[in-house]
Amino acid sequence: MNSVSIAQKPFLAVLAGQTISPAPLWLMRQAGRYLPEYRALRAQSKNFLDFCFRPELAVEATLQPIRRYGLDAAILFSDILTVPWALGQKVEFLEGEGPKLEPLRSARDLDRLELAGMVERLSPVYRTVAGVSAVLPDKTALIGFAGAPWTVAAYMVEGHGSRDFLIAKSFGMAEPAAFRRLLDIVTQATIQHLFAQIEAGAEAVQLFDSWAGVLAETEFRQWVIEPTRVIAAALRARFPAIPLIGFPRGAGGMLASYALETKVGAVGLDTQVPLDWALQVLPRTLPVQGNLDPVALVVGGLALKDGVRRILDRTRGRPLIFNLGHGVPQTTPPEHVAELVRLVREG
Amino acid sequence: MNSVSIAQKPFLAVLAGQTISPAPLWLMRQAGRYLPEYRALRAQSKNFLDFCFRPELAVEATLQPIRRYGLDAAILFSDILTVPWALGQKVEFLEGEGPKLEPLRSARDLDRLELAGMVERLSPVYRTVAGVSAVLPDKTALIGFAGAPWTVAAYMVEGHGSRDFLIAKSFGMAEPAAFRRLLDIVTQATIQHLFAQIEAGAEAVQLFDSWAGVLAETEFRQWVIEPTRVIAAALRARFPAIPLIGFPRGAGGMLASYALETKVGAVGLDTQVPLDWALQVLPRTLPVQGNLDPVALVVGGLALKDGVRRILDRTRGRPLIFNLGHGVPQTTPPEHVAELVRLVREG
Repeated sequence: MNSVSIAQKPFLAVLAGQTISPAPLWLMRQAGRYLPEYRALRAQSKNFLDFCFRPELAVEATLQPIRRYGLDAAILFSDILTVPWALGQKVEFLEGEGPKLEPLRSARDLDRLELAGMVERLSPVYRTVAGVSAVLPDKTALIGFAGAPWTVAAYMVEGHGSRDFLIAKSFGMAEPAAFRRLLDIVTQATIQHLFAQIEAGAEAVQLFDSWAGVLAETEFRQWVIEPTRVIAAALRARFPAIPLIGFPRGAGGMLASYALETKVGAVGLDTQVPLDWALQVLPRTLPVQGNLDPVALVVGGLALKDGVRRILDRTRGRPLIFNLGHGVPQTTPPEHVAELVRLVREG
Repeated sequence: MNSVSIAQKPFLAVLAGQTISPAPLWLMRQAGRYLPEYRALRAQSKNFLDFCFRPELAVEATLQPIRRYGLDAAILFSDILTVPWALGQKVEFLEGEGPKLEPLRSARDLDRLELAGMVERLSPVYRTVAGVSAVLPDKTALIGFAGAPWTVAAYMVEGHGSRDFLIAKSFGMAEPAAFRRLLDIVTQATIQHLFAQIEAGAEAVQLFDSWAGVLAETEFRQWVIEPTRVIAAALRARFPAIPLIGFPRGAGGMLASYALETKVGAVGLDTQVPLDWALQVLPRTLPVQGNLDPVALVVGGLALKDGVRRILDRTRGRPLIFNLGHGVPQTTPPEHVAELVRLVREG
């Protein structure tokens, strides 16, 4: 990233600290099942991991929402669980059921993980990044991403999605040394994975800590803040111009500590975060991203209009990237996304 | 409640604003499946609602954890979904599956609800309260409870548990007038239900807003804060000496607004709330309740010891009721609860 790309790309300009009107926008999970063209593309592959690992399909999935809506950033189409897979864990996506992993339940299970060769095993992902980068419009930025170590480790131990990740949290509390070792492995894997995406053309990266909200303060500090701080420092050292957006979903009262102590370059706010409060506890210069309730997008009409208005009004004078507070739901009518883009662009 | 009962009951003394050492304690879902004596009792009834509506069984379930652990408060054994049932909605509890309700999905569906006669239909619940009240040790307080209107309405519309209550939130945003009417009905039902519990002997009441955390600020204000404020005002007018504990699980950055604007007498803190932050944003005199991670209770040992220590250290000089940040998990070894009680009593 250099000053030319910042000048051309509003998304990168905001991450560099500028306040821009209208605010640039993209949407978490902007590529996906709510789009008919995605469903048609997805039908070309039997399973989801295979789909993620075929660059010709993943490039197209990444580009679909850009073509349709002219959003300000594309995000690599992939999944956070490609990393555990590439570390040697068995990962499956069963249709309609979500991910299933062969769970890690003891210090010994960790011996099966292998960091060496991971980047090679993930090479189709980087080919996807390069493929998107080559064809993206000049004003559109390309975002790489990874799951944050806690969230990825939580899936690796639990073996599947969960409301409270009781098994993963229990493992972490009962065997702190082993869990620390797992977090260290995932942290190193995440750094390598983000570096490789940047080398392939990603201009910014986002770290999704989707399950940060199930942790109490002590574990939030050790499992969310500390690994994120390590990743942010590694990125800053190697790629000082590449911004990192941290998204600690459910951080609640830990939001300011997260932002200040991890030193991420921008913070993604989840649906639940009250904006006035967030803007008061976060540094004035820190770019924020968010946080329309995805339900307002599904409902459309007045709920959508009021929701957008409120966010634009309250963030005036602050560097904002407009986004949802969580991913686009599958039941979203595609025309509501077009309406959202229109509303944000009207300012 | 009078000054005699406050003097005898540490739980009520803290709710009256006193700081007491060792802190009084009880545990959300302290009666339940983790106790072998509960499982034996539960086997006497085919289904869960029937169990809740048989005072001889519900009284015994309420008392079991008091006998075993000598906790400072008993909480009525019941369920928040007795209210929708008594309003005329079909409610079932399928073993191992959680509740199933015949969902309300339109303004017209609301016409089926009937507030008149609700208290009569819930009379077995009040007989349970009276039965517990008659036999409880002098130093043990009796807590009545209800689900808060948003959480109850969310189940009534969604028809079952959910991670995000997308259907209920969509209904509320798409049909604000109908949803407001539903919240009003549930609010009035909740007030009557709490009044009847107090008349039967409840000395304090807790309002469980278990799903407050899925709402964005606008809806949190309209659906969580506003109905809770109405309930708190009604209680204060009729029973000025009965304290109300609000438990807005997942309130995050809305915690202080919730406490100040609802005017509840005490706030229950969920697992995720950082204590230093909460004690800084809440009024010094407001009693707080919480907030040990239930996972620390399941794991036991050092995790339990450190977790208890941390809460006691950080709340020194503030009125505290020790509790978990969420309910006792089914997998909790009963001896860990005994250890928790010992640790809190040691101070």
